[in-house]
Amino acid sequence: MPVRISVDAMGGDFGPSVVVAAVKASLAANSDVTALLYGDRDILASEIGDDLDAELKSRLEVRHSPSLVDADDKPSVVVRSKGDSSMALAIRAIADGEADACISAGNTGALMALSLFNLGTLSGISRPAICSEIPTDNGPCLLLDLGANLDCSAAQLSQFATLGSLTAQKLLGISMPSVGLLNVGSEASKGNGLIQATAELLEADPSINYQGFVEGDGIFQAVADVIVCDGFSGNVALKAGEGVAKLINRRISEFCLGNWWLRLVSLLMGNRLLQLKSSIQPSLFNGAYLLGLNGVVVKSHGAADILGFTAGLDTAIKAARHQLPSILSPILKKNNY
Amino acid sequence: MPVRISVDAMGGDFGPSVVVAAVKASLAANSDVTALLYGDRDILASEIGDDLDAELKSRLEVRHSPSLVDADDKPSVVVRSKGDSSMALAIRAIADGEADACISAGNTGALMALSLFNLGTLSGISRPAICSEIPTDNGPCLLLDLGANLDCSAAQLSQFATLGSLTAQKLLGISMPSVGLLNVGSEASKGNGLIQATAELLEADPSINYQGFVEGDGIFQAVADVIVCDGFSGNVALKAGEGVAKLINRRISEFCLGNWWLRLVSLLMGNRLLQLKSSIQPSLFNGAYLLGLNGVVVKSHGAADILGFTAGLDTAIKAARHQLPSILSPILKKNNY
Repeated sequence: MPVRISVDAMGGDFGPSVVVAAVKASLAANSDVTALLYGDRDILASEIGDDLDAELKSRLEVRHSPSLVDADDKPSVVVRSKGDSSMALAIRAIADGEADACISAGNTGALMALSLFNLGTLSGISRPAICSEIPTDNGPCLLLDLGANLDCSAAQLSQFATLGSLTAQKLLGISMPSVGLLNVGSEASKGNGLIQATAELLEADPSINYQGFVEGDGIFQAVADVIVCDGFSGNVALKAGEGVAKLINRRISEFCLGNWWLRLVSLLMGNRLLQLKSSIQPSLFNGAYLLGLNGVVVKSHGAADILGFTAGLDTAIKAARHQLPSILSPILKKNNY
Repeated sequence: MPVRISVDAMGGDFGPSVVVAAVKASLAANSDVTALLYGDRDILASEIGDDLDAELKSRLEVRHSPSLVDADDKPSVVVRSKGDSSMALAIRAIADGEADACISAGNTGALMALSLFNLGTLSGISRPAICSEIPTDNGPCLLLDLGANLDCSAAQLSQFATLGSLTAQKLLGISMPSVGLLNVGSEASKGNGLIQATAELLEADPSINYQGFVEGDGIFQAVADVIVCDGFSGNVALKAGEGVAKLINRRISEFCLGNWWLRLVSLLMGNRLLQLKSSIQPSLFNGAYLLGLNGVVVKSHGAADILGFTAGLDTAIKAARHQLPSILSPILKKNNY
């Protein structure tokens, strides 16, 4: 199935230099993908260069945007005054039927606000959640929310469970995904009032295969296919995990460089140890869904490098191929959400 | 300085078998430490065995406790009805001046409730916080709260900042410890109402060297000497970090076992790669302070093995040597806390 991706080329810590290079790599790897690139036309033309392969060029369209969203712009101000930004126009492309998925590495709050304003939510969903596939020993687990909703009600957390469960069915092909609720302990008495109230809702919901509480380390052990939490603790969990992975990667690097024997054996082994290192590189698990919208919007890590943004594009392409929101919508309706 | 440790020998996933072995190792390594071991006298006698060195035996006293605290006991029930448990008696030893520090791997909520009941808090501190040293590239950072207070007010978080800051001064020897507030982003506009209100309090407090917001990955990058958070997100951050470290350790193990070249070089190198693995073993950073009490109480990870519980004992011994609460108390009074 051909996939059309709209890209906010001005977002992220490195802006167009990373985004354009990643889009080129992604188009080269996926012959049925076309891209709309939103941003400053001169900067983008210079990043694309003159020597791009003609076939790739035919699948890449630059669309000029006069403004851009800054990292510290307030979401409400962006919605009011930056409708002509690269981020806003990339999202509009979905609403206008010109793209199947949109990706941005920019300001998360602004991306959420612009997506809500331009696309709206699925039936029965009050607020979208940010959801990411987390690598574990036994395939990915879906964690949500990762920062869109810092203070949640039990009803909201229960909606996230439904969204995550349906997404795991469709995207990961799991027929009855197990759902866990993030907590400070696994015993039934643990947690505050919000957690206890949410657990009651999930236990009473026949459409959810609820498995009980999951602790922070359970996220990376595949103890559940879907793990639900408020946006504050989810964001902290994800970034803490990234922080430890980076810390250990630095130690492996120092270890490899500081060791004569290991440098020799690394050469002989074709850098297998560095492959181990890259298998635990957080940036290669990039791209989070804004789940619950009437359209596919993917948030890339702001600090993503070219490989990382390419992984984010893969995430957006996968969701578009599965036509994620249009699959979820009728199920949500059937279940009276 | 001689140090007397009281030990709840019945707590944790493995109970006396791990605790007694760790206490023996700790006494052997620290000739000025004596231990009071609370638990079932028959079980403890059998774990200690008949062949213990006479000098070690002279520094180890078993005290019988008729009951024990279970993992799912409610804290309020424990305080009312389990005053003769190994955990309660180990804490009483501090209140009675028989021990300088207490350690337990048991039920965290019960440990907190019994400690509050038997020891009380330092002047100006409404609730103690669980605080742990987190390993980073540049020495440890103190993270608190790790799960004692799931819902916090801005005033409480500000008290944690004071406790953490004073502890870093005394325990880590940092004269003006930098203090960060855990948040979902580093920009000043990020976070919910609680975070914004706490930031205002910390900015206005001349006794705190406040550095602003810290994200989850910043915990392991030494971006601040002390990082303050509510107990829910702190617990999640710590365990998520542990989960990733364990995941990567499993991959390193598989990698070492599955690779002929690397097994050979590991032998030649004296298992240096396994040393790298153990340098990132979460269980070796064991032992969290219940900070803000009138006495040193240390919580060991429930899943700690012998090496892990020995590390927890080291943590308790260190805090006892620094006479932590009696040092903090006059400073808190001076600052009108």
